Amino acid sequence: MLGCRSSNHMRAVDLIRKKRDSGEHSREEINFLITGYTRGDIPDYQMSAWLMATWIRGLSGAEIAALTEAMLQSGEVITFPELPGKKVDKHSTGGVGDKTSLVLAPIVAAGGLHVPMISGRGLGHTGGTLDKLESIPGFNTGLSLGEFRRVLRECGMALIGQTAEIAPADKKIYALRDATSTVENIGLICASIMSKKLAEGIDALVLDVKTGSGAFMQKEEDSVRLAELMVETARRMGKKAVALITDMDQPLGRFAGHSHEVIESIEVLKGRGAADLRDLSIELSAWMLFLGDRTKSVDEGCALGAKLIASGEALEKFQQGIALQGGDARVIDDYSLLPQARNRKEIKSQADGYLSATNCMEFGVALATLGGGREKKEDPIDPGVGLEFHKRIGDRVTSGETLVTVFYNSEAKLAEAVQRIENSFIFSNQPVPGKKLVRRLVGA
Amino acid sequence: MLGCRSSNHMRAVDLIRKKRDSGEHSREEINFLITGYTRGDIPDYQMSAWLMATWIRGLSGAEIAALTEAMLQSGEVITFPELPGKKVDKHSTGGVGDKTSLVLAPIVAAGGLHVPMISGRGLGHTGGTLDKLESIPGFNTGLSLGEFRRVLRECGMALIGQTAEIAPADKKIYALRDATSTVENIGLICASIMSKKLAEGIDALVLDVKTGSGAFMQKEEDSVRLAELMVETARRMGKKAVALITDMDQPLGRFAGHSHEVIESIEVLKGRGAADLRDLSIELSAWMLFLGDRTKSVDEGCALGAKLIASGEALEKFQQGIALQGGDARVIDDYSLLPQARNRKEIKSQADGYLSATNCMEFGVALATLGGGREKKEDPIDPGVGLEFHKRIGDRVTSGETLVTVFYNSEAKLAEAVQRIENSFIFSNQPVPGKKLVRRLVGA
Repeated sequence: MLGCRSSNHMRAVDLIRKKRDSGEHSREEINFLITGYTRGDIPDYQMSAWLMATWIRGLSGAEIAALTEAMLQSGEVITFPELPGKKVDKHSTGGVGDKTSLVLAPIVAAGGLHVPMISGRGLGHTGGTLDKLESIPGFNTGLSLGEFRRVLRECGMALIGQTAEIAPADKKIYALRDATSTVENIGLICASIMSKKLAEGIDALVLDVKTGSGAFMQKEEDSVRLAELMVETARRMGKKAVALITDMDQPLGRFAGHSHEVIESIEVLKGRGAADLRDLSIELSAWMLFLGDRTKSVDEGCALGAKLIASGEALEKFQQGIALQGGDARVIDDYSLLPQARNRKEIKSQADGYLSATNCMEFGVALATLGGGREKKEDPIDPGVGLEFHKRIGDRVTSGETLVTVFYNSEAKLAEAVQRIENSFIFSNQPVPGKKLVRRLVGA
Repeated sequence: MLGCRSSNHMRAVDLIRKKRDSGEHSREEINFLITGYTRGDIPDYQMSAWLMATWIRGLSGAEIAALTEAMLQSGEVITFPELPGKKVDKHSTGGVGDKTSLVLAPIVAAGGLHVPMISGRGLGHTGGTLDKLESIPGFNTGLSLGEFRRVLRECGMALIGQTAEIAPADKKIYALRDATSTVENIGLICASIMSKKLAEGIDALVLDVKTGSGAFMQKEEDSVRLAELMVETARRMGKKAVALITDMDQPLGRFAGHSHEVIESIEVLKGRGAADLRDLSIELSAWMLFLGDRTKSVDEGCALGAKLIASGEALEKFQQGIALQGGDARVIDDYSLLPQARNRKEIKSQADGYLSATNCMEFGVALATLGGGREKKEDPIDPGVGLEFHKRIGDRVTSGETLVTVFYNSEAKLAEAVQRIENSFIFSNQPVPGKKLVRRLVGA
């Protein structure tokens, strides 16, 4: 794509200057920077200066699409010519208790589409799909691309982690952003997410962009802007996409913590479980089924999703998927096979009133403090620890009622975690309405 | 100066974030960054991200002073306890034909003060004092600090280049700025200049900040802002300082080029030479003599400067200084000992009118094209090539009159140089006033 002539005359120092001075890069310029950096021709110190200029000056829609494409093309782009029908996936920007992938992948696969899902690990206050699945004894998220392909073909769903072949530019750039305070920029975030997701060989992508006190983007307008950018970028690259802006002012579902979230997901697939988790999982599935041409409307997709739960087909699909990835599929019926924390502690309300808000991110930090999350990528995770949330925003709470049950192993950091949790509930004397789960649709 | 406690808790990534978000650094934070980077504890890629954030967000006066001090303290700070009286110096931001150091150092030394001058080399369109002096056969600008001290004691003036011991942080940071498009920021420029100048062990500094088409800062308000910052920084560090904003809309004096500028400087010291060069050299000398407590006023300094030229004392001092630094002092009376270009070409005016403006930087670029300047630091210089300017802004010019005489050796790039020069004169049909040499005083 890159002409020799322009390549010969381009210099990183000039492109840094251009972005510093608020200029807009051409597709060739972005490609020169990303391929040069990935190959090692452009040193870290030039890339980090460009990233800081970019963080401050911003990227246009066209620049983000070019950046996404260059990062995508830095590695392998999977295709599935052997599989009939549409390949669809969902990506969430992350939050506390967000386990919809575990519910919707079986639903959509049971509906007849293919879900090739490349997921991430938890970092900071958020959990990661891979970590949750790995709480199932034997479950292998480190499949080779060949095994990934085989599992996908056999049961319609497969969940793995990012491999070295997928978007290596993103991996290298992300590490540099992390060390240079250039992470939180929606253009860079969008390109990072989309370059990985588009490498999966999907036809359509449903985005779940979280907003609120437990999300990376706490302000709704920022979440909407990121959603718009991601949808625009996907479409520029010829993919169908839609984004749901969903509530993260409180945890999703009743549980946070790895084993607990697997159990809660199985409960939803059994037709039970928390209503908000069930509703959102079905709605996201419905969009996947609709964008994947399996249903004629989203409503029809919702009905199909509910039917696949009621019939047990989605649960069966999950069981099959677990087994194909080496996991002990008996967990479906025997939750005691999953790691369990030894101790529990009830955190009781000291106030009367209506629960009006939570500092939701603090629940994630408290969970990580107990060992159920990571500060650094290398940290191990204790999958048995967890939090059970007994109250939702809008609920009437009396002094002495349990707000949270803490499942923990070590006393060492319990006090810190408890204090974080206790300080994260806000009450009102006046009745407060419940939170709307899906706040907005982008690109629908 | 840096407390252990704060050092233990400081992280470069947080300081990058702070500057990215337009925060103001404490003195300790600046010191942490600069000492950490100089030692190699902070990697290039973090420093370059900080430099870009700083380039865009700017530095406060207090931050610039802290940066200057940290860079100054990264190396050796010379002191001259053995020398009586005040040590003074001048720094120019650079331009075309700017050779005042060669004239004023002998004047001020002849006046009884000490001038320990650490100078730079030419780069781009500007010449450097060291390069000019090295056109004198045998002249050694690479004295050790011990020799520098001895020459200064013996004749009151000594001119050398930056040594490895002086402000190593500046050297390392400058190379990084050059590669990351973070050079042209007045806060960073100020700290770079002042950290080197204050390492000289001077009591007072006169700044010659050029403005106009041949200066780095072409707009007068930018030059004034840089001048204010440098004066403020010098004073925060306990030094007397004043800045003259001087014209660089046309070359200073009649000649540009290394040998030619040495000759022109000697001519001024002989009481001849170009009026603008003589006037500015005396005015800058007068400020040095005044700030160094040698005269009671600047006017008295001007009178003393003129007297030291008329008496031949300044010329004698220059002769002594050349000899002490290993140069052939016979050049004072025999200019043919200096390198001379073999060929000359007259560039004639093709227009009638009043010379109203020049694109002065282009003269410097044309000279460099002929070999009389550098594109990169390692490039050699041809000291014999030069330009003689026959007309000044405001002069009436008739078609066919000589505008510039080009002294050159190689035909190879003559055409390019001639074209640059021809295109850099702008004429008017209406009479045009001459340029005021000293446009403004800052800090007086």
